[in-house]
Amino acid sequence: MKRAEYPPQLKLLIAELKRLPGVGARSAERIALWMLQSPDSHPTTLARAIEAAQASVHPCAQCGFFTEADLCSLCSDPGRDAKILCVVEQPTDILPLERSGAFHGMYHTLGGRISPLDHVGPESLRISQLVERINTTQPAEVILALGADVEGEATAHYIADILQTLPVRISRLAQGIPAGSGLEYADELTLSRALSGRTQVGAGRL
Amino acid sequence: MKRAEYPPQLKLLIAELKRLPGVGARSAERIALWMLQSPDSHPTTLARAIEAAQASVHPCAQCGFFTEADLCSLCSDPGRDAKILCVVEQPTDILPLERSGAFHGMYHTLGGRISPLDHVGPESLRISQLVERINTTQPAEVILALGADVEGEATAHYIADILQTLPVRISRLAQGIPAGSGLEYADELTLSRALSGRTQVGAGRL
Repeated sequence: MKRAEYPPQLKLLIAELKRLPGVGARSAERIALWMLQSPDSHPTTLARAIEAAQASVHPCAQCGFFTEADLCSLCSDPGRDAKILCVVEQPTDILPLERSGAFHGMYHTLGGRISPLDHVGPESLRISQLVERINTTQPAEVILALGADVEGEATAHYIADILQTLPVRISRLAQGIPAGSGLEYADELTLSRALSGRTQVGAGRL
Repeated sequence: MKRAEYPPQLKLLIAELKRLPGVGARSAERIALWMLQSPDSHPTTLARAIEAAQASVHPCAQCGFFTEADLCSLCSDPGRDAKILCVVEQPTDILPLERSGAFHGMYHTLGGRISPLDHVGPESLRISQLVERINTTQPAEVILALGADVEGEATAHYIADILQTLPVRISRLAQGIPAGSGLEYADELTLSRALSGRTQVGAGRL
């Protein structure tokens, strides 16, 4: 007597679903069985959506955000301020910044950050394209909106060094206490950066 | 200035992924971006696996388990004991029973349980096929391995009534304390069933 198991194509589907980020063995099995059993699962629609997105979505030729055309909706929007350029690590960093509603300029994605441990050097990032873009579009300011971790800081320093010779103001995001959070949840490094980056709120009896 | 958003095909992919059971808005976005960005995501393989499983996996003609052939691996295994038939609600109930290693007979799935609230009556279940199968294969015993909830109990009663006239022993799974669990975690109904289903372990000084 053999131990019962799922047929090969079902096992293959479960194995492929298990490769998705955040999907474990149990979820993969649950999703596969739902696809095969539920009358309103329409798995073919998902299969086609995967293939369509895969075929038509690619990085914007200018900024690296997702687009189906040559230029993305951001780069082709004449209402945006071309005088200010925000440099981010990943295209996925753009929507959170957009949701903040605090930035109306253009973006440039690097495609990662310098990380020798992951074999990512400056030459793998879109840094030469950034320099070229600054030379062409002449923005007044470049904001380095990179991560506040070691690799993000190293990448920001590296880029700031390179841009030093160009006629552009270079800034980076403030580091400090996250909004809505108390001091008791902040680690020492965050507090030390919040202190050194403190901003004046009044002059007192000076 | 328009608010930036993902291109249509990417939004469609995220929407389809969000429909999967256990996948929320954030996970759907994460999976979609991983598909488009990670060099080893191979999303086309998943798309093809979905379509292949959808096209080739169907219920076994005899027991209702998943198969790519006419009969599933269980029904076509000559090493299994055809004298004992285990009735389950769903094909997904079969593998847990198989993993227990305690059953070597055949299975029959009903495709659900009687549930008037969900508009599932006896006629939507594979009960006539069960009666026909018992008449044809003449098993010595039918085990009703249905859920220990109200609908499972009602379905078991209904089927037991129908099988009453057939020359077959009818049994159902024991209800009681789950293995490895203490009395303090058992609810009253479980305890009451564990008491009424108690088994003798010795005769004492009778």
